[in-house]
Amino acid sequence: MTARILVVDDVVANVKLLEARLTAEYFDVTPAYNGQEALDLLLQQSFDIILLDVMMPGIDGLEVCRRVKSDVRTQHIPVVMVTALDNVSDRIAGLNAGADDFLTKPVDKLALTTRVRNLTRLKALNDELRLRSNTSINAGGENDTKLINVNGDNGHILAISDSVNAIDSLARQLTDHGHKIDVETDPEYVISHLSQPNTYETVIVNLHLENFDALRLCSQIRTLEATRNLPIILIAQKEDKKPIITALELGVNDYILDPFDHNELLVRVRSNIQRKRYTDQLRSEVTETIEMAYKDAMTGLYNRRFMEMHLEKLTKEAIENDKKLSLIITDIDYFKSINDTYGHDVGDLIIREFGKLVEKNIREFDLACRFGGEEFVILLPDTDLRVACYVAERMRQIVAAFPININQKPHIIGLTISLGISTLSSDVKSGDELMKKADNALYKAKRTGRNKIAA
Amino acid sequence: MTARILVVDDVVANVKLLEARLTAEYFDVTPAYNGQEALDLLLQQSFDIILLDVMMPGIDGLEVCRRVKSDVRTQHIPVVMVTALDNVSDRIAGLNAGADDFLTKPVDKLALTTRVRNLTRLKALNDELRLRSNTSINAGGENDTKLINVNGDNGHILAISDSVNAIDSLARQLTDHGHKIDVETDPEYVISHLSQPNTYETVIVNLHLENFDALRLCSQIRTLEATRNLPIILIAQKEDKKPIITALELGVNDYILDPFDHNELLVRVRSNIQRKRYTDQLRSEVTETIEMAYKDAMTGLYNRRFMEMHLEKLTKEAIENDKKLSLIITDIDYFKSINDTYGHDVGDLIIREFGKLVEKNIREFDLACRFGGEEFVILLPDTDLRVACYVAERMRQIVAAFPININQKPHIIGLTISLGISTLSSDVKSGDELMKKADNALYKAKRTGRNKIAA
Repeated sequence: MTARILVVDDVVANVKLLEARLTAEYFDVTPAYNGQEALDLLLQQSFDIILLDVMMPGIDGLEVCRRVKSDVRTQHIPVVMVTALDNVSDRIAGLNAGADDFLTKPVDKLALTTRVRNLTRLKALNDELRLRSNTSINAGGENDTKLINVNGDNGHILAISDSVNAIDSLARQLTDHGHKIDVETDPEYVISHLSQPNTYETVIVNLHLENFDALRLCSQIRTLEATRNLPIILIAQKEDKKPIITALELGVNDYILDPFDHNELLVRVRSNIQRKRYTDQLRSEVTETIEMAYKDAMTGLYNRRFMEMHLEKLTKEAIENDKKLSLIITDIDYFKSINDTYGHDVGDLIIREFGKLVEKNIREFDLACRFGGEEFVILLPDTDLRVACYVAERMRQIVAAFPININQKPHIIGLTISLGISTLSSDVKSGDELMKKADNALYKAKRTGRNKIAA
Repeated sequence: MTARILVVDDVVANVKLLEARLTAEYFDVTPAYNGQEALDLLLQQSFDIILLDVMMPGIDGLEVCRRVKSDVRTQHIPVVMVTALDNVSDRIAGLNAGADDFLTKPVDKLALTTRVRNLTRLKALNDELRLRSNTSINAGGENDTKLINVNGDNGHILAISDSVNAIDSLARQLTDHGHKIDVETDPEYVISHLSQPNTYETVIVNLHLENFDALRLCSQIRTLEATRNLPIILIAQKEDKKPIITALELGVNDYILDPFDHNELLVRVRSNIQRKRYTDQLRSEVTETIEMAYKDAMTGLYNRRFMEMHLEKLTKEAIENDKKLSLIITDIDYFKSINDTYGHDVGDLIIREFGKLVEKNIREFDLACRFGGEEFVILLPDTDLRVACYVAERMRQIVAAFPININQKPHIIGLTISLGISTLSSDVKSGDELMKKADNALYKAKRTGRNKIAA
């Protein structure tokens, strides 16, 4: 993992020192000697990480950080604040300004490499997600990416230590600052517990467990599907340099040396939670966008495109595996005249209500889609004609029995639907034929009086 | 980076050896002693990597590999074949069976850790993409993920060595096997060249460059936007253990020891290209899916949802930055009667042709969308009313002048469109008002005879 790093400090010697250390590790370093120069460089070149001194004449580090984090063009670049050891207020101010991590002067080599490598790895993942979530347009030269605002407050934390006493003051500190913390003493239980979906946002592991190898525990947490992206903070002693390096190689995100400064603890926990929330948000935006490609916006059912993508394939699989498959096409009787009489808003309301009804009356693995206008298609795997007709008839009865409240006079409208049903057979051997057969049946139901099912 | 590894070998001692080495590095190892057991375990648990012996009684390693790679449930799991040193044909057969990488018996510790770590890292990225590209449904319990078929043939390769002689026979080997290879001797030129978009699928770097630090070169290739995901293969000597480890830490993907076996070279190049193509394909599937969420399927223009997402924001930005912004709403005159007369197919054809015309007549940063039916909306940043009217009038004239060929009698249909135009002003200060104003203008154009623009 390598990266382009912008090092910002008004003291030339400090820049040179960081530059030498990072270059020796094959990082690509660009120096900047004041805040304005840093901001200018950020708009001209692309960087992976910013190392930022707090105290600078002119625009100080906190202000640079604030500007980086409030600009959509730079928000995604991790910022590491470099602060004096005893300056707790700078760290808190840095976090409030949006900083992602902290280094203490004089900068320890291990700490430097750790933070930088870790943020590089996380940025690579975030870049990948960002590219996908970027639904921006470049209209009039304006970039349209969204700012993501997350903090690291009120987190849900799991602390693992086989001595409750050792972790007690830590837990109290975190609770006092608004976090919810669970303490576990049995590593075996932790593993079985964490393999289930959970709401933890950070896990703190004591490196010195009596009866369990803490690194193996970290490794297991990292490999479990449910906790792959869960930040791990290790509590270690000053002399634990070697296991710390191994831990970081395993994907542990951060470490705190015991005895620890309480503010250091709070700041590290907060920044790990914040980073996790940032990535989670990116991830869920991508997921939402992808859902939109396959869902009908009005009803939340699948759209026609999705049905067309899957119909032939599912039909082919059903035939190959000698399984049953049925299809229902339904539409709302006289919908056009309802639309003309009561207006589009009422028409839309009815479509939505009918969509809900369809969803409630099918199984989880049935595939319901709004095919267009007031027409819906439902694909029922493992279902023969008799059962499909039963499902269709049940829907018909429910619609006919429960008028819809439209919040205008007249308050309720009685609706009916017609339904056409088809199933795989020696005559019907493709998705296309299923659709045609059901469509013909629907036409028959309509022609012979509506409020009917036909097969 | 840690991982769950399935180790498959019928010789218990071999399994134990690999297990011991991997467990020492905190990998999570599950053993299997024959092909069937491996296949059963793969369906019960989830694994990150499979280490697979070729020679086994019953279902041999090649067959296990083939089945893993042809099953959508397991295709994404990297397979490392473990082969005898001199068995070239096993390796080729392995690649043909879909193997991702190779290890030679007796397994070297560095080689083992390298391959496993590398594949773990790649799998983490692929998993993230796979989750997004997974537009599958779970209908009837059938998983519907697509199989991705890529090979590593006919690649485009860049080889970097400051002595052309040294790389000559390598280049010839690769060319003889259908790859296209460019040889570069000047690392500085390579960097400036690779920072541009390029079609390389793998780069081979000679560790022993005379006048340049090859590791720094690798690091730069890894940090360049355009080559972030480009596989790097290092050519090193047996005594280069330390720089090889550094290189792998920097993100170099693979290495070959010189003097190298020609088949080893071919197999490594092929498998790196194959892995890149797999990831690229996943990535482009996600991108396509996301595009679908914002594009109108019929015309390829943006859809209504996208316009609605961006209209207010772009309007607000234009006002804040004191810039002009205009909007055109247009629809096809008498479209419904065309649809009724010639049928839906002709109607759809006309919509598509009109969409193309709109696209051709706007600038890259204008925002055109199909708003619904035969109605289109175009947002023109940095454009005043006079220019917007000019754009609208030009479209009107083109449509009126060129009838559309519909491939049925009558062969061509003459069309006209009407257009309403609005622009930001002291009266019009929001996206909503822009739309209303343009809609009123369109209504005026229709009412006063159609085939007109109005503002």
